[in-house]
Amino acid sequence: MNFNEFMEKLKSLNYENLYQDDFLLTWDKSQDELEAIFTVADTLRHLRENNISTKIFDSGLGISLFRDNSTRTRFSFTSACNLLGLEIQDLDEGKSQIAHGETVKETSNMISFMADIIGIRDDMYIGKGHTYMKNVSEYVQEGYKDGVLEQRPTIVNLQCDIDHPTQSMSDALHLINEFGGIENLKGKKIAMTWAYSPSYGKPLSVPQGIIGLMTRLGMDVVLAHPEGYEVMPEVEEVARKNAESSGGSFTKTNSMEEAFKDADIVYPKSWAPFAAMEKRTNLYGEGDLDGIKALEKELLAQNAQHKDWACTEEMMSLTKEGKALYLHCLPADITGVSCETGEVDATVFDRYRIPLYKEASYKPYIIAAMMFLQKVKNPEETLQKLMDQNKARLVR
Amino acid sequence: MNFNEFMEKLKSLNYENLYQDDFLLTWDKSQDELEAIFTVADTLRHLRENNISTKIFDSGLGISLFRDNSTRTRFSFTSACNLLGLEIQDLDEGKSQIAHGETVKETSNMISFMADIIGIRDDMYIGKGHTYMKNVSEYVQEGYKDGVLEQRPTIVNLQCDIDHPTQSMSDALHLINEFGGIENLKGKKIAMTWAYSPSYGKPLSVPQGIIGLMTRLGMDVVLAHPEGYEVMPEVEEVARKNAESSGGSFTKTNSMEEAFKDADIVYPKSWAPFAAMEKRTNLYGEGDLDGIKALEKELLAQNAQHKDWACTEEMMSLTKEGKALYLHCLPADITGVSCETGEVDATVFDRYRIPLYKEASYKPYIIAAMMFLQKVKNPEETLQKLMDQNKARLVR
Amino acid sequence: MNFNEFMEKLKSLNYENLYQDDFLLTWDKSQDELEAIFTVADTLRHLRENNISTKIFDSGLGISLFRDNSTRTRFSFTSACNLLGLEIQDLDEGKSQIAHGETVKETSNMISFMADIIGIRDDMYIGKGHTYMKNVSEYVQEGYKDGVLEQRPTIVNLQCDIDHPTQSMSDALHLINEFGGIENLKGKKIAMTWAYSPSYGKPLSVPQGIIGLMTRLGMDVVLAHPEGYEVMPEVEEVARKNAESSGGSFTKTNSMEEAFKDADIVYPKSWAPFAAMEKRTNLYGEGDLDGIKALEKELLAQNAQHKDWACTEEMMSLTKEGKALYLHCLPADITGVSCETGEVDATVFDRYRIPLYKEASYKPYIIAAMMFLQKVKNPEETLQKLMDQNKARLVR
Repeated sequence: MNFNEFMEKLKSLNYENLYQDDFLLTWDKSQDELEAIFTVADTLRHLRENNISTKIFDSGLGISLFRDNSTRTRFSFTSACNLLGLEIQDLDEGKSQIAHGETVKETSNMISFMADIIGIRDDMYIGKGHTYMKNVSEYVQEGYKDGVLEQRPTIVNLQCDIDHPTQSMSDALHLINEFGGIENLKGKKIAMTWAYSPSYGKPLSVPQGIIGLMTRLGMDVVLAHPEGYEVMPEVEEVARKNAESSGGSFTKTNSMEEAFKDADIVYPKSWAPFAAMEKRTNLYGEGDLDGIKALEKELLAQNAQHKDWACTEEMMSLTKEGKALYLHCLPADITGVSCETGEVDATVFDRYRIPLYKEASYKPYIIAAMMFLQKVKNPEETLQKLMDQNKARLVR
Repeated sequence: MNFNEFMEKLKSLNYENLYQDDFLLTWDKSQDELEAIFTVADTLRHLRENNISTKIFDSGLGISLFRDNSTRTRFSFTSACNLLGLEIQDLDEGKSQIAHGETVKETSNMISFMADIIGIRDDMYIGKGHTYMKNVSEYVQEGYKDGVLEQRPTIVNLQCDIDHPTQSMSDALHLINEFGGIENLKGKKIAMTWAYSPSYGKPLSVPQGIIGLMTRLGMDVVLAHPEGYEVMPEVEEVARKNAESSGGSFTKTNSMEEAFKDADIVYPKSWAPFAAMEKRTNLYGEGDLDGIKALEKELLAQNAQHKDWACTEEMMSLTKEGKALYLHCLPADITGVSCETGEVDATVFDRYRIPLYKEASYKPYIIAAMMFLQKVKNPEETLQKLMDQNKARLVR
Repeated sequence: MNFNEFMEKLKSLNYENLYQDDFLLTWDKSQDELEAIFTVADTLRHLRENNISTKIFDSGLGISLFRDNSTRTRFSFTSACNLLGLEIQDLDEGKSQIAHGETVKETSNMISFMADIIGIRDDMYIGKGHTYMKNVSEYVQEGYKDGVLEQRPTIVNLQCDIDHPTQSMSDALHLINEFGGIENLKGKKIAMTWAYSPSYGKPLSVPQGIIGLMTRLGMDVVLAHPEGYEVMPEVEEVARKNAESSGGSFTKTNSMEEAFKDADIVYPKSWAPFAAMEKRTNLYGEGDLDGIKALEKELLAQNAQHKDWACTEEMMSLTKEGKALYLHCLPADITGVSCETGEVDATVFDRYRIPLYKEASYKPYIIAAMMFLQKVKNPEETLQKLMDQNKARLVR
């Protein structure tokens, strides 16, 4: 699509409620709102590829509040902020007084005097991350209302215990562009399957985000995992309802083969059982270190019973013409490369390296689009202004 | 006040000596200079609230040199730099070669090739912080004179052993705006009092900064603390002289009740005795870890004898109409919230939460105003230029 | 030189191959290319000194990938990025998933979606740093070619196991300006000599960089060190060939006196023997901690046999009229100041403090010039545009 087509698309959508709101869960948003984000992401990419600056901020801060290590998400968030003209400021809890018992309400306001965006990653404990984001959102809204803050910083969920919207939206935009349009995803079969990894405790937010979003797009979404690796029931419920509305389907199976059979897209990835993660959260809450160690041992043993859940060449041959598109949020556990036995065969991974990297390349634009639509009152007008002003990103 | 009134105010003031100078202690500065800072802080806030960019730098660095952890001050300094167009670069001594015995003179120059501002926080050791800042100032002045540096980075004291000017100036600007003008502060009674905290060794720079500044504004300043919690005598002397010139007063008492009686403003906050801090500095110098532990124990025991020094509802009822404005530099030790027994009752703190947050919100603007007046030769002209050019901070 | 003279100089040079290339080793580059970098460095400095903004990027990231601590290089790289309008993003391997076994290829792409420059410092292990940089370069080139990356981030070597081009180029630009032009360096004698330091394992890249570059400029380069402190033989070979082409000379000696005799420039500095560094690299590879400790002890003992290798006043008196220009990459080990016995007498160091600081001050500009010429297709046109547009760096 060219710039004018992007603008036409935007005009056809109803998305004004994104303005001044947060982005916490994809299922909080309407179909039009999601499509507006895809469209703005593509538009920003188009402008940047044509060396047109997309800076809409002339000063302002993007706060990153990460409670877990991350290269990719950190760089994506920084890139998105930089693309729009915001400077990153990390709230490193080690360095700050939060560790000294400061309340979340106070901190939320203290860091927000010049903050336009707060990006939060908090995915470690079931029942915590999403709640924390909602609290921060409420507190800065209050600070704005009370005249403490001159602007209301909006929150972007960079991964919580429930959803990982910047990942699933990037994955979806990748699919949209690979399959030549969002309408072409209707009826496509996507297998979101568990896969064996020698590490344990990987977050549930990726599979949950995928079943929660892809069911919106009219796809046939199959969730596959060994018994005992259930995801959060409320997210399955979301997926079920989405499928009903969209004309797609949501099914579950305990057979990886069944999921891969004739799939157009496969997303094999390890995660921890929901129940175990809940247990771990409680053990941490009680400070029960012995319990945590025991649980870890137990989970690794449980994982090891399912080493056959791997994206092998054989498994790939079951997919549609043996050529399903392989997705992963990266980094993957590659058999014989990053570990002895892992999620995927090295030959499979290698064959999909370029599309995998492209999949990842959408994330900065998805985050930037979320921020853009949350902060800009007249997005079409502003994008047109950027286009017309045609300021070189690099004077070369 | 509107923009033109701010400009009128500035024109009436004599403040050109701020240019190219540092901001280390409020009592180094004239009354007009302080008022210029308040005025520029309000002007920058006014412009930002009206979505007018206040970027005066098109590249340049603000160096943060923190020898102590800090969320608030770090974010305030970053915000101030960002507001004017400077990028922050942290000099993290852990990461740098300073730890390897590099001299201060060399480092001061090595970090300053593109540095417009150096913000320093060094409040831990009596007799060290202020001296360190003066050294850095001298060394970069020398580097500038010798043609090593193309610009002379100016220093902003973000808290030293003697003064905490960005805090006291923010507190003062809060009072100015709460009481409807600097002239309305004359004759107001402010109680800067010690309060019990279960932690120990809190810096003296806040009470010292407050008595050193509020006595300039014609206020009746009462410093109250238990016996043995004296602040630096030279700062008391400053306060005494200030009060004489300004027509205010400076008194001391060992009774919190006496200080709170009919006060318009109260600032109850824990600090460590000056003499103990001096002793600690020496013990650190000697590397006497056992001595430090013993001192810590002794100080905590001493503190615990004064748990009745707390900003309770009963104490608040002694103040002017029971409605004194409660100030704190945050975070406060709140009884029953952040600790068992602390500086302030939860109900008192809660009642003043919004004004407390507003008090804090002035700090980025105070820092920005100090920087602005230290770096810009023609402040009125430059502010007018920003106003006239009316560049959107956010193209929305 | 004035701006027009810089432009004339640039026009006379053939340097278009720098565009889109990396800067890894000075001896990869032609004489014209090096001169173009010197000229652009001086031009950028000239513009900044005249308060003219040199921002050519309106958003974009400079990634710093440091595998060793560094104040100077970190600040120089940040300054250079900031000068051109790039925001710094550190890839801190501690914080990132690289530590978890992520491959270099993947990471190189994942951090590069908005990256214009990647500055790498990796100087610890012989045979590793340069190879790592070449790998990163290859991987991002591949990512660019495959459509994963919209721009090809170019690499700047901020110090590797073989060369330290940003240091040697800064040293050379300092010499050019001190001696009044690059042509005046012909026939000048420079002594790159080992000197005693109480620490061990200092990188070889500085002496190697110096002999690899100064031999290009028609200088008489003498490399002096005690027996057993040889540098990499392949770099000596480079120096020998360079000297042949340039009409200079490259000689070796085991006598510091001989090197200093009638020298115009001296560069006395500690380094570790090449063979020992190779051994250390292998020990690290094998995880042989006891072996590393034993080697360290052995190296310190070996160093201690050569305490007479010091830049004393007596030694300086041997140089041309006793007034050779003293160079050092800083920080130096100063006898009686930073250590008991070190590389240089305090009186010598003090006498050269200002030129030493000036020497260091070129580094941000050298790095910026490398980046400029790697990213800008029409450098002369772009510099002229910056000059004509005359945008104030600081609106003062």
